[in-house]
Amino acid sequence: MAGYVSEAVIRRLPRYYRHLKELEAEGVKQISSQELGKRMKLTASQIRQDINCFGGFGRQGYGYDVPELKEHMAAILGVDQVHRMIIVGAGNIGRAVALSDSFPSNGFETIAMFDTDPAKIGGSIGGIPVLDIGAVTDFLSQNAVDIAVLAVPIDTAQAVADVLCANGVRAIWNFVPVDLKLPPETKVVSVHLDEGLEILSFKMKYKENA
Amino acid sequence: MAGYVSEAVIRRLPRYYRHLKELEAEGVKQISSQELGKRMKLTASQIRQDINCFGGFGRQGYGYDVPELKEHMAAILGVDQVHRMIIVGAGNIGRAVALSDSFPSNGFETIAMFDTDPAKIGGSIGGIPVLDIGAVTDFLSQNAVDIAVLAVPIDTAQAVADVLCANGVRAIWNFVPVDLKLPPETKVVSVHLDEGLEILSFKMKYKENA
Repeated sequence: MAGYVSEAVIRRLPRYYRHLKELEAEGVKQISSQELGKRMKLTASQIRQDINCFGGFGRQGYGYDVPELKEHMAAILGVDQVHRMIIVGAGNIGRAVALSDSFPSNGFETIAMFDTDPAKIGGSIGGIPVLDIGAVTDFLSQNAVDIAVLAVPIDTAQAVADVLCANGVRAIWNFVPVDLKLPPETKVVSVHLDEGLEILSFKMKYKENA
Repeated sequence: MAGYVSEAVIRRLPRYYRHLKELEAEGVKQISSQELGKRMKLTASQIRQDINCFGGFGRQGYGYDVPELKEHMAAILGVDQVHRMIIVGAGNIGRAVALSDSFPSNGFETIAMFDTDPAKIGGSIGGIPVLDIGAVTDFLSQNAVDIAVLAVPIDTAQAVADVLCANGVRAIWNFVPVDLKLPPETKVVSVHLDEGLEILSFKMKYKENA
């Protein structure tokens, strides 16, 4: 990868990957930056600039080889490898993540869930065992875990995150509406569902914006 | 509102609102732009600039009145009013949205869900009736609906969105990983869960980035 990549480019990468998967599924073998730009509502030069951040995959007068660029994009995103996940919190969100087909099909495999509710502990959701949160430290010492999905109540989120990080978790997919304080080496992506609805509400109110 | 507001500022608004709610709950009555900036990891001048987009709420030498600014922010976001929602798709995601406490507590009230599955139709989820998707046109003609939550399979998403828009829906909270083609007057906010995991995977791979 060619040095530092801006947050804006990073945010667009999954969209490139998705469109390339769609194109491949449609049987498209090659595409110009103009055509890809039209499809993604970006300019051709934007497309070329973004993709050049990761090496020059396009060829003058030909454009991009779709399956090749898709594979490169998968490698750049790291989704050409398996990530082992745990889900902490077996509530509505944790359950929805556990039951989704699309995460495992992308290599994100949930190996265990954790909760405090005796009614849930010992059971399973979508074939994934639900364990006692008290056992998470032991579990992490015995199992390689790449990502923890955090879907616990707000008031326990920071404490749970602290335990996860102290026990080797280096990536958190956070569904709790709170700014977590994490060690610098820990990567985090937050999904603040409430914020999405609030932005939608804002856009409905100020129709001139976007 | 003072004219056009950038997408970056809009994206920060819910975070301001959340921090102001937290501050109010902590009993904080006033806060300077410096203190708010420290808390939110933004510069004081960034804070002043953002808030000035919506009118000058700060007072020299005093800072911001927390409850007042929180109320203003609620009004700016439109969350001081009730939004009536329907959820189309009673799968894992639709169910998680229906069962969440936080959306109704923010004025987002789900009045009905729609699905194609005979096993779900006629039942209810969290007290919300699940109706036949075939009845959605009639339902929209008889009920005021502000927002449709779209949580259907990819291959039906565009067709369902078309029906919703043709029947008066002007705002869609989209959970389907697809770029919807919508009439210009329709507002959309998309939550692409897969993309969040892909970005997390990217960040784990390229540790120098963020």
